[in-house]
Amino acid sequence: MSKLSAIRSTKADSIATARLSVETSGEGFFEITAEVARFLEQIGARDGTVLIYLRHTSASLVVQENADPDVRIDLVTALRRLAPANAGWVHDVEGPDDMPAHVKAMLNGVSLQIPVSDGDLALGTWQGVYVAEHRTSPHGREVVLQFCGSCANSDRASD
Amino acid sequence: MSKLSAIRSTKADSIATARLSVETSGEGFFEITAEVARFLEQIGARDGTVLIYLRHTSASLVVQENADPDVRIDLVTALRRLAPANAGWVHDVEGPDDMPAHVKAMLNGVSLQIPVSDGDLALGTWQGVYVAEHRTSPHGREVVLQFCGSCANSDRASD
Amino acid sequence: MSKLSAIRSTKADSIATARLSVETSGEGFFEITAEVARFLEQIGARDGTVLIYLRHTSASLVVQENADPDVRIDLVTALRRLAPANAGWVHDVEGPDDMPAHVKAMLNGVSLQIPVSDGDLALGTWQGVYVAEHRTSPHGREVVLQFCGSCANSDRASD
Repeated sequence: MSKLSAIRSTKADSIATARLSVETSGEGFFEITAEVARFLEQIGARDGTVLIYLRHTSASLVVQENADPDVRIDLVTALRRLAPANAGWVHDVEGPDDMPAHVKAMLNGVSLQIPVSDGDLALGTWQGVYVAEHRTSPHGREVVLQFCGSCANSDRASD
Repeated sequence: MSKLSAIRSTKADSIATARLSVETSGEGFFEITAEVARFLEQIGARDGTVLIYLRHTSASLVVQENADPDVRIDLVTALRRLAPANAGWVHDVEGPDDMPAHVKAMLNGVSLQIPVSDGDLALGTWQGVYVAEHRTSPHGREVVLQFCGSCANSDRASD
Repeated sequence: MSKLSAIRSTKADSIATARLSVETSGEGFFEITAEVARFLEQIGARDGTVLIYLRHTSASLVVQENADPDVRIDLVTALRRLAPANAGWVHDVEGPDDMPAHVKAMLNGVSLQIPVSDGDLALGTWQGVYVAEHRTSPHGREVVLQFCGSCANSDRASD
């Protein structure tokens, strides 16, 4: 059983792009929800989609629960069980945590789209956006943010 | 070996958004292909992309085989093996099916884009779009549908 | 800790779509990065997003390391461990490699978006785009490429 709401329409008139640098402190989840919201505010976004894209192969992007931090601890545990270190990987020149990191990044993915409505991320109540770092040591990670849709100050589009 | 077809171009002139409420009856796959197609028909969509976004952290979106229902039974089995209940999770206050549901949602993801061509979803012959419910009990799930592209009745864009 | 770059804005004025046929030689990773880049060049893409969509349920799309080929060997091994053949699957009429292929396709996904900046894919240094074939025998796979954004020769949009 399903039910469709009223439809809201607008003109797609602009694309805005920026890069977000994220410093991780090693394996774990790093929330970037506020940074994405700030980007949308800066460009005066109204309705459209924001693409979040991670330019790496040993970290990934995840939308997950932002309430109980224990959930993120268990997610790290789950990923370690799915892609254990020292599991006879051929590619081991970059350390025992590298190949498991590639497997985790493949499973989670590096590309994420979230609808934007009236300038706000249309996230669920318990959803946060995270960069999941799969390497053991701290890394600098680069995220591309790209909004496509309508902007309040659409003059920006011709900057 | 690969080969590119002729290219079809159009103006990107409108964005239309709606929310779809889906009632699940517990763990399993719930098809929403027809609902997405109906949304595209209602807005007079021609060429563009439809974003399907699930606002939850213990269910996910999956494009999978719509022919033999045994495939979906096996997919549920596969997910249970990858994220078993009672596997020593720290987060267990919401029941033994909750943390496995978060793991499954992380692996499958909650964001999906499908190209639309001449108003039709460009799905493969055997592809259907599903909300995968990972909790044991029935849940109400909210999906955001957002089309970006050209519409037959582009006047809607200025509604 | 995170830092946002300068924002680059443009008009979203065109959508271009084409289909790419990819012949796989059986289980493994088949790179399509050059084909996607050629499509963007042909349409004169400047800024926007390219959607890559695979119309199948037993193969998937993956962004992963394009340097050491051993990484792809290990990724195949990892997927075999996560979805083994002969694991008591109900759906086995299409051979022992079929149901594991569906599981792998579900985990990796079939829909991928990559930002395009000044006509170039905004991939990380070590990222390549791959069709991951999960069936044992060679298959013809169809990929939809769809660019949404601004084009140098925007006259195309009214072709």
